[in-house]
Amino acid sequence: MGWGIISTWEMAHEGTKKGASILKNGGKAPEAVTEAIKEVENNPEYVSVGFGGLPNENGDVELDAGYMNGDTLSAGMTGAVKNIKNPVILAKNLSEERFNIFLTGKGAEKYALEKGLEKRNMLTEKSENEYKRRVEDVSKKLLSPYEGHDTVGVVAVDNFSTVIAATSTSGLFMKKEGRLGDSPVIGSGFYADSDTGGAVATGLGEDLMKGCISYETVRLMKEGKKPQEAAEIAVKNLDKKLTDKRGKSGDISVVCMNRYGEWGAFSNTREFKFVVCCEGKEPEIYKIEDYKVIKI
Amino acid sequence: MGWGIISTWEMAHEGTKKGASILKNGGKAPEAVTEAIKEVENNPEYVSVGFGGLPNENGDVELDAGYMNGDTLSAGMTGAVKNIKNPVILAKNLSEERFNIFLTGKGAEKYALEKGLEKRNMLTEKSENEYKRRVEDVSKKLLSPYEGHDTVGVVAVDNFSTVIAATSTSGLFMKKEGRLGDSPVIGSGFYADSDTGGAVATGLGEDLMKGCISYETVRLMKEGKKPQEAAEIAVKNLDKKLTDKRGKSGDISVVCMNRYGEWGAFSNTREFKFVVCCEGKEPEIYKIEDYKVIKI
Repeated sequence: MGWGIISTWEMAHEGTKKGASILKNGGKAPEAVTEAIKEVENNPEYVSVGFGGLPNENGDVELDAGYMNGDTLSAGMTGAVKNIKNPVILAKNLSEERFNIFLTGKGAEKYALEKGLEKRNMLTEKSENEYKRRVEDVSKKLLSPYEGHDTVGVVAVDNFSTVIAATSTSGLFMKKEGRLGDSPVIGSGFYADSDTGGAVATGLGEDLMKGCISYETVRLMKEGKKPQEAAEIAVKNLDKKLTDKRGKSGDISVVCMNRYGEWGAFSNTREFKFVVCCEGKEPEIYKIEDYKVIKI
Repeated sequence: MGWGIISTWEMAHEGTKKGASILKNGGKAPEAVTEAIKEVENNPEYVSVGFGGLPNENGDVELDAGYMNGDTLSAGMTGAVKNIKNPVILAKNLSEERFNIFLTGKGAEKYALEKGLEKRNMLTEKSENEYKRRVEDVSKKLLSPYEGHDTVGVVAVDNFSTVIAATSTSGLFMKKEGRLGDSPVIGSGFYADSDTGGAVATGLGEDLMKGCISYETVRLMKEGKKPQEAAEIAVKNLDKKLTDKRGKSGDISVVCMNRYGEWGAFSNTREFKFVVCCEGKEPEIYKIEDYKVIKI
């Protein structure tokens, strides 16, 4: 029992190391989570988050992010925002407001610049080429244009039992202008309550939202479930509900951590990787394969 | 037990009558809910919803709406959209998509026009004057600029046990450009599951979102609570949580209905009015005053 940090996808490895080192040295969860996510946002190799994120159908990079502080339930959300270097910092700034905590599009950009956040053209040559290659793939092979949706989501608890949950993403490949997924939607992409714990989700936002999956995962922990059990129940129930009512379910993956630094993760996908670091341990990469948690 | 419709605020009286008449004649909940909300949206007397809604801080009317079909959990959301006559119809159209179900700003407007939805300048002389008067009030009397937040929210169940929940609003007075409240946020402003029931919320969106209040109300009904009990528990718990963690809670009001047409409503405000019509009865206006449900 102590501090801990858990993040979606292998791309969060470096960031999670950075976050863990902050927590290890007595730092706080807000810094650990934002530093972890910034590391992913700033890396142009990752084409689904931040700088170098894939553009929407118009060729514009529009980004989404969410941030929640479990001590106060303060949440900040931003969606379809352009030209801001670190959307997660924008979301954190918004969480400190009493009104206007969810800003989109030009209004979000304007607010960020007023707050002194760094402006940046988020389109890279790499993501532009990747976009063109995928557009070609789609037209040649009739692939679904909706494949890449790797959101970075991080939950951390510090030595002061503050729980933070946050997300950042460029969203669905070839998404429409102004489209928001689950990542900036409180309760769906993220939720945190320091009395209990926090959760973040990744997958098909359109389906994750139908079950308020992050809120439900935290609620199950509040009810007394261990994090692993909470993640499993939440993912299985939503998967079943969507399959019963709609014939199929999109990808659903959840990671969570309770206020004691115990963690859980589950996914209905073929393979979902995530990174965890808890007090006294090194950051490690795990995967969910065939519904089992495996250390890599 | 049978069909029923419940709506937030007295302004929904005419719309609820229209919705009830559709249900009485064997019509379906999607039509009853959208007709009820359109009635409010189209009425320029109501300056917090649709045509004649109050503009944001720039003087632009930006509207939010949400729609959910409890048979399939299909949800559609739109936020900060300009110049579209009926945002609730836009949200309903979005709910029929598999991808891109939450569109904001120009992207939402573009989609709506592609779908053949009617374009309309939503600013009226009345709302412009009201805006100017309030701006003057604010500057003269140091009133908080955040007072008007009367969202129309409707839940209905039809004879086929389909539950629909939907919302429409112009949001906070003097809100920032691109600001979204709870109304277009699934689980916060609205939620519906035909296996259980539906709920909608109105009040300070920034605080309603912190507890995913509509999802929580439906969940309590799923757990076996009667609608009135579910609404009371959900509102009281969130009010208490916000007060404990933040020193105060904003306005929280919820109305809900289960799949049998039984209803509930609760509010932490001094006075909250709502309209109900159930099978075999006429549409009636109620209020919550001092935490009690009173028929007017």
